[in-house]
Amino acid sequence: MSRFAPLPEPPYWAVIFTAQQSDDTEGYGAMADVIAARALEQPGCIGMETTRDGAGLGITVSYWDSEAALLAWKADAKHLVAQSMGKDKWYSHYTLRVAKVERQYSGPEGR
Amino acid sequence: MSRFAPLPEPPYWAVIFTAQQSDDTEGYGAMADVIAARALEQPGCIGMETTRDGAGLGITVSYWDSEAALLAWKADAKHLVAQSMGKDKWYSHYTLRVAKVERQYSGPEGR
Repeated sequence: MSRFAPLPEPPYWAVIFTAQQSDDTEGYGAMADVIAARALEQPGCIGMETTRDGAGLGITVSYWDSEAALLAWKADAKHLVAQSMGKDKWYSHYTLRVAKVERQYSGPEGR
Repeated sequence: MSRFAPLPEPPYWAVIFTAQQSDDTEGYGAMADVIAARALEQPGCIGMETTRDGAGLGITVSYWDSEAALLAWKADAKHLVAQSMGKDKWYSHYTLRVAKVERQYSGPEGR
């Protein structure tokens, strides 16, 4: 499966979530897998890109075709549980930014 | 040094660069360090967040206070050299999206 999200015609929405893991990662991996799969099933979810280095700094960008779709995901019951565990346990710091994608390109050409 | 970028009052701009490294990473690390430092010196650059996992998938998000600032950086001479080497050598695939940040938050509170 590609780790790149599709590139639909802009405008659409990006949620940029940057997070530093804490030392307590118990249960994190299983929850992350469940939540990522669930996000991708939501109406209006275009795709997701995620990576994390050995020092525990992760960036996850999810893409949405409307603000209503990303707000519905924010309020999803299982996602709320995960958000709460992230705040209380898994993350020492995080930022989340909601942005409107206006243009894009990809490359290298032909690859 | 914090690996998180500042959170100025929106709106401002985000450039989301997702890239899969190729097998040929010779010279990449040195250039990446130079280019990141140079980006942060540009007028209008708010900050940058970057991470890459062991499989070579990297996400770098740079933040800019105006479209003019990010366009000037795109055309910077040393950055153009790096872009060319990325296309020809270092990346098997990449996407770049320009997005306008409209709102944000951070947490956990107090940390």
